[in-house]
Amino acid sequence: MREVAILGIGQIKIGEHWDKSLREIGGEAAFAAMQDAGMDKVDSLYVGNMLSPIVSGQNQLGTFFSDWIGLWKQEAVKVEAACGSGAAAFRAALMAVASGDVESSLVVGVEKMTDKAGRDVTASLATAADADYEVEQGISFVGINALVMRRYMHEFGWKHDDFAPFSINSHANAMHNPYARLHEKLTVERFEKSSMVATPINLMDASPTGDGAAAAIIVPAEKVMRKPKIVVAASAAATDTIAVHSRKDPMFLKAAYESSKRAYEMAGVTPEDIDLFELHDAFSIMAALSLEASGFAERGQGVRLGLDNEISPQGRVPVCTRGGLKARGHPVGATGMYQIVEVVQQLRGECGKTQVDGAMIGMAQNIGGSGATIFTHILKTAA
Amino acid sequence: MREVAILGIGQIKIGEHWDKSLREIGGEAAFAAMQDAGMDKVDSLYVGNMLSPIVSGQNQLGTFFSDWIGLWKQEAVKVEAACGSGAAAFRAALMAVASGDVESSLVVGVEKMTDKAGRDVTASLATAADADYEVEQGISFVGINALVMRRYMHEFGWKHDDFAPFSINSHANAMHNPYARLHEKLTVERFEKSSMVATPINLMDASPTGDGAAAAIIVPAEKVMRKPKIVVAASAAATDTIAVHSRKDPMFLKAAYESSKRAYEMAGVTPEDIDLFELHDAFSIMAALSLEASGFAERGQGVRLGLDNEISPQGRVPVCTRGGLKARGHPVGATGMYQIVEVVQQLRGECGKTQVDGAMIGMAQNIGGSGATIFTHILKTAA
Repeated sequence: MREVAILGIGQIKIGEHWDKSLREIGGEAAFAAMQDAGMDKVDSLYVGNMLSPIVSGQNQLGTFFSDWIGLWKQEAVKVEAACGSGAAAFRAALMAVASGDVESSLVVGVEKMTDKAGRDVTASLATAADADYEVEQGISFVGINALVMRRYMHEFGWKHDDFAPFSINSHANAMHNPYARLHEKLTVERFEKSSMVATPINLMDASPTGDGAAAAIIVPAEKVMRKPKIVVAASAAATDTIAVHSRKDPMFLKAAYESSKRAYEMAGVTPEDIDLFELHDAFSIMAALSLEASGFAERGQGVRLGLDNEISPQGRVPVCTRGGLKARGHPVGATGMYQIVEVVQQLRGECGKTQVDGAMIGMAQNIGGSGATIFTHILKTAA
Repeated sequence: MREVAILGIGQIKIGEHWDKSLREIGGEAAFAAMQDAGMDKVDSLYVGNMLSPIVSGQNQLGTFFSDWIGLWKQEAVKVEAACGSGAAAFRAALMAVASGDVESSLVVGVEKMTDKAGRDVTASLATAADADYEVEQGISFVGINALVMRRYMHEFGWKHDDFAPFSINSHANAMHNPYARLHEKLTVERFEKSSMVATPINLMDASPTGDGAAAAIIVPAEKVMRKPKIVVAASAAATDTIAVHSRKDPMFLKAAYESSKRAYEMAGVTPEDIDLFELHDAFSIMAALSLEASGFAERGQGVRLGLDNEISPQGRVPVCTRGGLKARGHPVGATGMYQIVEVVQQLRGECGKTQVDGAMIGMAQNIGGSGATIFTHILKTAA
């Protein structure tokens, strides 16, 4: 398996792009990545997307975009793993380049969520859960996460505002990210006063959706002259049951544990070596669970990292350095690619006020469903 | 890139399985493939599916099935390329095993189409076309193919019944395939008298949809002791514009030409070496176009192969030896995996009355959209 490097990245500002189509937003990110890589042609295209069949009535998104971008013969497919679709597409592209079958791949994570009204999007997002045994009961996706958060608070004795530091950190970091959806400072007071979504998850525990697209170009590492050279040191994926109620322990992200363990082995590192961690804070509870399952905190103690102020760009475990899902925004199938792009920006030293000093090794973790499908990628700068 | 072999296959009879869920039909095919391979565990799962987000309200089909099958840690994703989803998943799995990252992969093509009424399925199938520029005009997927067929008849001077041999051959072969949806002999007279769907495509030009699932297990070739050893000699994919009206020549399947050309090069063969060709006869016109673009007939002369009786299992270019899409049935996202499974059955010599004598090299070609995404795989028996 040959080593693979990320040569170019591109992204658009997350928001409600009523004036732009699915085609246009995905194309913008793709063209930006190609320009950044200095390439006008790639061998293959992998698109990560979750909702377009439902929200935009469009399937076959691989070819939909290869056509629009002007890759008129090259192969193209879509890879889907709910909110983990971005990283799923990245990993599939990685296998293709690593196998030697193709010499370059463009990966685009894209989601257009504003083409239908809010209620439809909530129903569409529920397709990530188990249609027969969860959704059939009338529960929404946020409702499932609320049950997990409530149980966690009960088991480990945390209060609701103990989760505030995760959201406050994400909002603070997003202030310096021009691509972020939200540029608003968050205080503990505002966190606590926010309207309830599904008890105990309120609006400030939950990430905002939006239209977004982020892209990267990967090539064999040996072909990259650009400095710093950013290589993929590890790529791992694991799954858990699709329904949360099927798990022996619903508060432990087994798939995060399995995929991060494998990633650490592949990269030859431990959690202490990770300079920053772009985790999947779709809800504040998920930030705590990711930190615990990935070896950064003991069981039930993920919240402590926030309370102890260890998660800022200057902290011991910087997370969501560009705003995370909470404030950069969560265009579901695109999120995994935003995380990859953001780790690259950190390793290139392009993050200004939220730059992690001397960042050499960064990790991204993208989650599909309620912990059902989890991808962990470790990127590092290479000599 | 290491050589990959197909160790096990499984499939279910295509039909209207009102009594079985999406879970159950995919699981049946998967378990059959695992039993055939003599394996109770695999490293990874790739699911090919097109319609489940719309028809079954279920996304994240990779983990949905890894959970059901009992692969409780292993990675799993869904790959989608409209009706080419089955082969798309197969190719993605192939890259993963070929890269050395995983040692085995289960590929399941699955489609449940009877959970919604017919009208919804027609609308769902249209998501394979261009939502903004084709579907918006009110045209259905069969309507697009009808335009191509009409033009082809006009350009090359063929009558409607000249296409009958394709459907008659598929129906004749399906008689001997227990997994086929239709077991009905077809005559030219019945072909001509069938009700019109979208002029000039009538019911006997068009493949029936249905619920179906087909699966295969792939592993590194060096690990296979089973005889005959069936290896993947070539895997190639190519794309064209998503909308048919964007093509300079709508009657030439450029993506079939590109992917078959690459596949021939990879396998070191020519069309003359192919013992059987499982082509994508979603509509009879597509059989003719596939034969032409893949080098078996001159432009406008694909129809001639049927009229000259060259396409039967005893002919020079056997096609659709198990019934093809026309009579085995076309559960859209599963079709590509049925084709792979059928080529394996031929190379194993398990096809009884439709066995191609001494078959050593077989080709499968799976098409997403109206020729937009095309996958060509060549399998062969190895020493």
